[in-house]
Amino acid sequence: MLLLHLSDVDEANWARKFREALGDYPVVRRGDDFDPKAVRYIFVWKPKPDAFDGLDNLKAVLSLGAGVDALLRHPRLPRDVPVVRFVDEDLSQKMTDYVVAQVAMHHRLHSRYAADQKARRWVQLYPPAAHETSVGIMGMGVLGQHAAERLKALGYSLRSWSRTPKDVEGVEGFAGEEGFGPFLAGTDILVNLLPLTPETQGILNYETFARLRRKLDGGPAIVNAARGGHQKEDDIVRALEDGTLGAASLDVFQVEPLPTESPLWTAPNCYITPHIAAISNEQTGVRYFSRILLDHEAGKPLVNVVDMARGY
Amino acid sequence: MLLLHLSDVDEANWARKFREALGDYPVVRRGDDFDPKAVRYIFVWKPKPDAFDGLDNLKAVLSLGAGVDALLRHPRLPRDVPVVRFVDEDLSQKMTDYVVAQVAMHHRLHSRYAADQKARRWVQLYPPAAHETSVGIMGMGVLGQHAAERLKALGYSLRSWSRTPKDVEGVEGFAGEEGFGPFLAGTDILVNLLPLTPETQGILNYETFARLRRKLDGGPAIVNAARGGHQKEDDIVRALEDGTLGAASLDVFQVEPLPTESPLWTAPNCYITPHIAAISNEQTGVRYFSRILLDHEAGKPLVNVVDMARGY
Repeated sequence: MLLLHLSDVDEANWARKFREALGDYPVVRRGDDFDPKAVRYIFVWKPKPDAFDGLDNLKAVLSLGAGVDALLRHPRLPRDVPVVRFVDEDLSQKMTDYVVAQVAMHHRLHSRYAADQKARRWVQLYPPAAHETSVGIMGMGVLGQHAAERLKALGYSLRSWSRTPKDVEGVEGFAGEEGFGPFLAGTDILVNLLPLTPETQGILNYETFARLRRKLDGGPAIVNAARGGHQKEDDIVRALEDGTLGAASLDVFQVEPLPTESPLWTAPNCYITPHIAAISNEQTGVRYFSRILLDHEAGKPLVNVVDMARGY
Repeated sequence: MLLLHLSDVDEANWARKFREALGDYPVVRRGDDFDPKAVRYIFVWKPKPDAFDGLDNLKAVLSLGAGVDALLRHPRLPRDVPVVRFVDEDLSQKMTDYVVAQVAMHHRLHSRYAADQKARRWVQLYPPAAHETSVGIMGMGVLGQHAAERLKALGYSLRSWSRTPKDVEGVEGFAGEEGFGPFLAGTDILVNLLPLTPETQGILNYETFARLRRKLDGGPAIVNAARGGHQKEDDIVRALEDGTLGAASLDVFQVEPLPTESPLWTAPNCYITPHIAAISNEQTGVRYFSRILLDHEAGKPLVNVVDMARGY
């Protein structure tokens, strides 16, 4: 039996998808009528304190999150049960695909040429080479590092900003509040891949934009592939309109779907996609964990098991 | 003294730029009144049979072309004078910047989202991961290989087509007339970096487009960064209008500047740039060869000298 224990996400939808994928294999949710001793696998996201109570025959804990730091701090996580984390290479790849496409577009002055084309204007302004353009990545977790590696291979100058210092080869690292200004001052294209926390809420605001380097023709650009809560949308519209920003690529929004009346739809050089950069969707997760569960039930070993000592 | 001997390019403009860069150092052209024995350097592109006659004090032959195969076959090239080739990393980098930006845009379904944004439509269509999209590069010289390396690092599936078979790791190679159909049949995004020859003239035509794979949402895309002579512009317009092509990125045209009345300006999903992908411009060439010449006159050794035995 598989027990789902998910907070802050659509658990009912996950349950539906798991039932489709697992056929006869029983799938239950908290609140359903089931015997805790029959639960062999628990699939968790932000588990409550009593999540693991009474699950005496647990074979594995399946973690929706790729990061398991919070889960490992759970006081009643059974220490002798393996934890399997979600290794979603597909998610990282697609997020990087999105980031690279937007960064390359802005670096190659796409907005400028689109305007010239509309006016049937032939003006040979030459974009800089990649190494002359500085891409600043906020957030250097799995996704930030994945994107940084690919942008590095393309030749861009790279810098990063994170809560705690991160040492990534070929990426100039900045950290904390005191590093934020210097980080922005040398950034032409700002990419947001931060987790959403009280500290990072609204970080993409007018003051931030005004501190970016103004080297790229038309002005600096931002790419938000993280969370709508990171951005102040009125500030983005204002910055695009007054030239503080040259362009913005937004995949996430304060309210989704983006309301029809939002001024972002028509703000100058604003590139909107409907939260499709890359999401850890049910399809990928269900496919991944269903295979692991069925393989394990068939006697195969678990994969991507967390090393408890190492912590990931 | 520097002698310029350039065919098929604007020699007068090169001479002007070299004179600006070299100050007092004498720069002459064919037809000028000068003593051939005073010529220490000759800068050549497609040299005539008598190009080197009487140049008894030549210190080096400077080649505008990165490829020197034709030059080395010149029957009267002095065998004891070093040949310096143009190593234009800047050109390769910028060409790749352009190609990557256009490929990534099309792979990420830019045209589709631009249309949705215009209609304020929120439809979550997820683009494939890079490895699910096949980029076919025509022409595997210096530029084709440079672009292939970077696209490979991004995760794209790569194939190439060239006159003679080329073996590049991680790139499925096709060659010659018999390889063209199979090459196209597995290509989602077609990138042209071929040299313009009688055989490649008009290769980007309706028949070619119709043979591309139709896997990408909206249809296959083409990117032409080589020469306008490669493309049949009426065919491109027709293919974009009837959906045979999903998108086209064109940096070069049959007539440049692109005439105001050309239907390409407004063809659906046609992305026009004014021949700015990357050109081996006078500025880069003059800077490169002036430094080499002045350094050599100051007693420093030549760099990027062709190995005559190896042939490059």
